[in-house]
Amino acid sequence: QSSVTLYGRINTTVERQKDGGVSTTGMFNNASRWGVRGTEDLGGGLKAGFQLESGFASDTGTGTGWPGLATVGNGLNFGRQSEVNLAGGFGMVRLGNFVPESYYATADYVSMHNHDTGSSSDALYYDPVWFGGLGTKNKIGYRTPSLGGLTVDAAVLLHERAAGTNDKNGYDLAANYNMGPLHLGLGYSSVDSNYQVGLRALYTFGQFTVGGYYQRNKDDNQIVTTGAGTRNNFRLSGMYALGASEFHVNVGHANSWSNVNDSDATQWTLGYNYNLSKRTKVYTYYTRVNNGNNAGYNVTNSGSDFSSFALGVRHNF
Amino acid sequence: QSSVTLYGRINTTVERQKDGGVSTTGMFNNASRWGVRGTEDLGGGLKAGFQLESGFASDTGTGTGWPGLATVGNGLNFGRQSEVNLAGGFGMVRLGNFVPESYYATADYVSMHNHDTGSSSDALYYDPVWFGGLGTKNKIGYRTPSLGGLTVDAAVLLHERAAGTNDKNGYDLAANYNMGPLHLGLGYSSVDSNYQVGLRALYTFGQFTVGGYYQRNKDDNQIVTTGAGTRNNFRLSGMYALGASEFHVNVGHANSWSNVNDSDATQWTLGYNYNLSKRTKVYTYYTRVNNGNNAGYNVTNSGSDFSSFALGVRHNF
Amino acid sequence: QSSVTLYGRINTTVERQKDGGVSTTGMFNNASRWGVRGTEDLGGGLKAGFQLESGFASDTGTGTGWPGLATVGNGLNFGRQSEVNLAGGFGMVRLGNFVPESYYATADYVSMHNHDTGSSSDALYYDPVWFGGLGTKNKIGYRTPSLGGLTVDAAVLLHERAAGTNDKNGYDLAANYNMGPLHLGLGYSSVDSNYQVGLRALYTFGQFTVGGYYQRNKDDNQIVTTGAGTRNNFRLSGMYALGASEFHVNVGHANSWSNVNDSDATQWTLGYNYNLSKRTKVYTYYTRVNNGNNAGYNVTNSGSDFSSFALGVRHNF
Repeated sequence: QSSVTLYGRINTTVERQKDGGVSTTGMFNNASRWGVRGTEDLGGGLKAGFQLESGFASDTGTGTGWPGLATVGNGLNFGRQSEVNLAGGFGMVRLGNFVPESYYATADYVSMHNHDTGSSSDALYYDPVWFGGLGTKNKIGYRTPSLGGLTVDAAVLLHERAAGTNDKNGYDLAANYNMGPLHLGLGYSSVDSNYQVGLRALYTFGQFTVGGYYQRNKDDNQIVTTGAGTRNNFRLSGMYALGASEFHVNVGHANSWSNVNDSDATQWTLGYNYNLSKRTKVYTYYTRVNNGNNAGYNVTNSGSDFSSFALGVRHNF
Repeated sequence: QSSVTLYGRINTTVERQKDGGVSTTGMFNNASRWGVRGTEDLGGGLKAGFQLESGFASDTGTGTGWPGLATVGNGLNFGRQSEVNLAGGFGMVRLGNFVPESYYATADYVSMHNHDTGSSSDALYYDPVWFGGLGTKNKIGYRTPSLGGLTVDAAVLLHERAAGTNDKNGYDLAANYNMGPLHLGLGYSSVDSNYQVGLRALYTFGQFTVGGYYQRNKDDNQIVTTGAGTRNNFRLSGMYALGASEFHVNVGHANSWSNVNDSDATQWTLGYNYNLSKRTKVYTYYTRVNNGNNAGYNVTNSGSDFSSFALGVRHNF
Repeated sequence: QSSVTLYGRINTTVERQKDGGVSTTGMFNNASRWGVRGTEDLGGGLKAGFQLESGFASDTGTGTGWPGLATVGNGLNFGRQSEVNLAGGFGMVRLGNFVPESYYATADYVSMHNHDTGSSSDALYYDPVWFGGLGTKNKIGYRTPSLGGLTVDAAVLLHERAAGTNDKNGYDLAANYNMGPLHLGLGYSSVDSNYQVGLRALYTFGQFTVGGYYQRNKDDNQIVTTGAGTRNNFRLSGMYALGASEFHVNVGHANSWSNVNDSDATQWTLGYNYNLSKRTKVYTYYTRVNNGNNAGYNVTNSGSDFSSFALGVRHNF
């Protein structure tokens, strides 16, 4: 017998989506997941911990894929997380498969309306390590203890190729700093000459929360064959909470990649959440991506626009 | 931490099966499953709930497929159920993937000897929505509160095709009525011009339980290429309980489809269960399907007959 | 609600491996697993029990395959175990899918340094039933009660082919005998004319533990097309425990198969474990396989040698 927590999130929407000229009414999964986690007190301030997390499609029940994993054939898998760690006064050492801390420190942090899941998730954030082939796996991570509100995470993703072949280890760095109502973050990841770096700020005053991040990308051999070049990506989000209600607005704009004309895009979302409890909410949103002629964020064909009107239920357990 | 229940059923038999002229001795899975479910009290009579359920083959350990799911590659999956719901005085609203209530109200209700699993499960029941392509997924359901013993379920399965294409939403309706020892049920499902409708009754007197259902089918473009037409399907089941023992008999007959000569079939099962506890039983049964020349229920080649003698253990946890 | 235990093992290493001339630094999974198990007291000394166990790759999160299972497409599956059993004064009857007791009685029993997982696991042990096609599935097993320290396990694996075709049921036998500090075991398995038989002894004196097994193999139509013939396989292992530290040495040697010249191999491992608790350890080892010209244990090309230097964390929950 052991102390283990079974947890999860079921997040299901009914949406009217429009991808270019094609409208579809359907039921959609918004990054539903289940997992198992636990910690063991080893004495002397030392702890061992683990977390295993599997995504699944709440609309159909299949397992879901994950960047960097070979095809999962609709089966459940711990592609979202499979980690073992040791923590103590020295910080925490982590081994296995886990989401980049650079993402949690930036794009995820300001995505308040549906926790960066589903059709209104941040379509413009790009990480050349996570999405460019290495995924989130074969990772050794280290987290510092909190140093006066500052925490730093560093990780290396092993490329696992034969020695002497082209090295492609991935690297991930993140810093989070909390100072009362102000929350700052920095994220950086790189593989080969490709990188992304982001800066995030979030401020709470009364019932208002406003946040945003700026991301700089460079990609020499991914996204498009000859390398997309560089890009700037901006996002602002705001929330007003009134009792059980939350009113959200979220706007992002990515400039064109330097080597791809007219590849800019704008994404915005208006959302309303009603919290039935801390664990359960019902919500609605309207979200839209306007793509430049050579941008294809969230759509089948470049240059098309995407929009969706959604009604949903999210339940955490 | 949260209140979550891990549950399941392991149901394994050793059988001597005969499919036409071919006899095989093997170990068989009878719809084994594991799942996670929970409810949250939201106050004011409101509740949130969820259920995730995965089938698996208890004889080998692989995951099992499910109608309407793409190939699952032997991996575990929540094809059997992935549902989130909200319930209150108004009834219950359900979103996701779950078994048709029309089935629970009819065929499943009278299948007492091995809970409609395995080689003695009801081979003749047919649902054009569940088995005809839409499966059990992308479903919005509503259940009324109990109205003097009457409960009604209604659901729509979204077809998720582009607007303007041929609409193929599926629909499912069920009604259950309990009046002392008499239990009545009605089930209906339809997609396009295909439908099934069933009526069920079950009566308990002393140690005897007798039940049955009648199903009417119409299929214009499924089962066979040109449409099977219409069909009537009947079933009777009886149980005599004596202490820990249960004696079962179950007989079904499907008439020929109107467009397919000699496609009638008869299925019967004699079973004995010994309940070691409420959760655990050992059992044995003999089951047989006699197919008309153009009927292929449970067999490889149309016109062949199927039979099996089984010994099994079923354990619920 | 029911009494169910969720359990598992996460065992992750970072290794520098050398396969012939190719060196790779990577993160590796060492037979990580999660599962669900439980027992029910049926009264009168009778118990029902079950166990479901899924392997997963702790470095990436995918599910893992298993001998005898069709491709699992990276999804989680209960290939490691899916068993239901009934136990009482008569012993225990087991149905389903479970690891051969002949293995636990011999090779596994003396593998103390990393519990026969990962790159230092026993590369030379061979079971024609488990690895030769039937796997661990479709199995009916029986275990005697303990008879003065002696326990015997017997099992048959159903071939599940049509009657009249070539019979290929598999058989597995094991005996374990404990007499104070001396622990003896015997394992036997066979399918067709192929078999393996093993004898094991393990002795504990103070902080030292020494063990070993001898295995005799015969394979007429597996491993190589024309049948490998016969083989002898030996292994010795020793452990010295000092407080939280364990020092391990493990050496195995397989003679050449009688029909394959120069197919002998030697494997040895030096390991050090530091137990942070009963559940959690950190460890390091160096392991090596020296293959004869026509032996390919652990390597891509026959005749190459394998070695690895590993650092790891193992956490049980």
